[in-house]
Amino acid sequence: MACQKCHGKDSPAPGPVPKDLVRLYSMRFCPFAQRTRLVLHAKGIKHEVVNINTKEKPAWFLEKNPNGTVPVLETASGQVIYESAITCEYLEEVFPQKKLCPADPFERAQHKMLLENFSKVVPYFYKLSMSKEGDLSVPEKEFKEKLSQLNDTLSKKKTKYFGGDSLTMIDYFIWPWFERIEMMGLKHCLDHTPELKLWIERMYENPSVKATMFSNEDHKVFFDSYMEGKPKFDHGL
Amino acid sequence: MACQKCHGKDSPAPGPVPKDLVRLYSMRFCPFAQRTRLVLHAKGIKHEVVNINTKEKPAWFLEKNPNGTVPVLETASGQVIYESAITCEYLEEVFPQKKLCPADPFERAQHKMLLENFSKVVPYFYKLSMSKEGDLSVPEKEFKEKLSQLNDTLSKKKTKYFGGDSLTMIDYFIWPWFERIEMMGLKHCLDHTPELKLWIERMYENPSVKATMFSNEDHKVFFDSYMEGKPKFDHGL
Repeated sequence: MACQKCHGKDSPAPGPVPKDLVRLYSMRFCPFAQRTRLVLHAKGIKHEVVNINTKEKPAWFLEKNPNGTVPVLETASGQVIYESAITCEYLEEVFPQKKLCPADPFERAQHKMLLENFSKVVPYFYKLSMSKEGDLSVPEKEFKEKLSQLNDTLSKKKTKYFGGDSLTMIDYFIWPWFERIEMMGLKHCLDHTPELKLWIERMYENPSVKATMFSNEDHKVFFDSYMEGKPKFDHGL
Repeated sequence: MACQKCHGKDSPAPGPVPKDLVRLYSMRFCPFAQRTRLVLHAKGIKHEVVNINTKEKPAWFLEKNPNGTVPVLETASGQVIYESAITCEYLEEVFPQKKLCPADPFERAQHKMLLENFSKVVPYFYKLSMSKEGDLSVPEKEFKEKLSQLNDTLSKKKTKYFGGDSLTMIDYFIWPWFERIEMMGLKHCLDHTPELKLWIERMYENPSVKATMFSNEDHKVFFDSYMEGKPKFDHGL
């Protein structure tokens, strides 16, 4: 089930979620869904994946999440959870093995503030890689400033990861866009962020990153097909 | 300290936060800061308020929160927390008295999804009340649809509040914009949302709402002064 092809407009709805499994509605190349895939893997949670054609969504999927976005989690008892950060926090609370969030409330608040700030960086990845014309020097400058702030966060903390010397949930939340930064043609924006570069190198060594990632080449095939209006959702299957 | 006038560009920084107190940096008429004021009141947390001139912010305030927004919490040990939902969740975790969030992880996820969806309703309040020209029939229609969805949430649950038959954090998160809906000239948008109207009536009876609210008249004085570019941050003091 983990490798099945995407469900489009006319695909029949999958049956109920098998007992003792969690189901993830995903799209193989979606960075938000990758957050949840990373957490499912890191915590070793038994799950199945149902991939969705996010361009031509089945009606039954829109009933589960009226916003139409992936990731969506569904439990055997029919509970449905959407929005990437919410799905991950839910998994953290329900599956106590291998805690990924700090126990201290202030540290948890710090991670949430970092996520909130990072959510304002995400649009730059798309603006800079998808715009086909126009002067991008201003957004590129702003993007570099934001990467520089992320770099400062690491250098001030003097830690290997954003939450300390071990990897925590916030690293997984930030990661998917850095996996795509080279494919997006934005690697030069990291030229003056040495700590962030080291973090990227460390993240590539993480088993859950290894298990969920795609190569630059595969990301590029999907990205180009998406830009042409014909996304290859099943590329690589 | 709770009623002191706002701190502007040249105001000296306040001293350290007294032991056993939490400090809230606020702006009296800010709906986001009201979320935190509601939670501080509901949980009976001893606190002081430092009001900020959010048009001409002191440099020391921007050091605490580079985003420059209120609310910001500061503890006696110098911990700083910003973003309204994050400040409220922090208070909920640190002060166990009078729990405002459900214990069940799925219910908590549901409240977070509702908050996420509501965050997409908030901009409509401003667009519809602040636009001085142009045809607003499309955004007004969309706004009414979104209010209708909120109404459906209540009517499907058949509960008095958004989280059940007792008031929880999510009600406080949603409330401040409904306190202002009449002042904003948008009360007619509630014409076909009877459950939502009943919820508003119930909320007005809540002691924390009563303790943090302003009258339509006072909200209007602030709103008009804001629209004129000369916000009366200290109106009523």
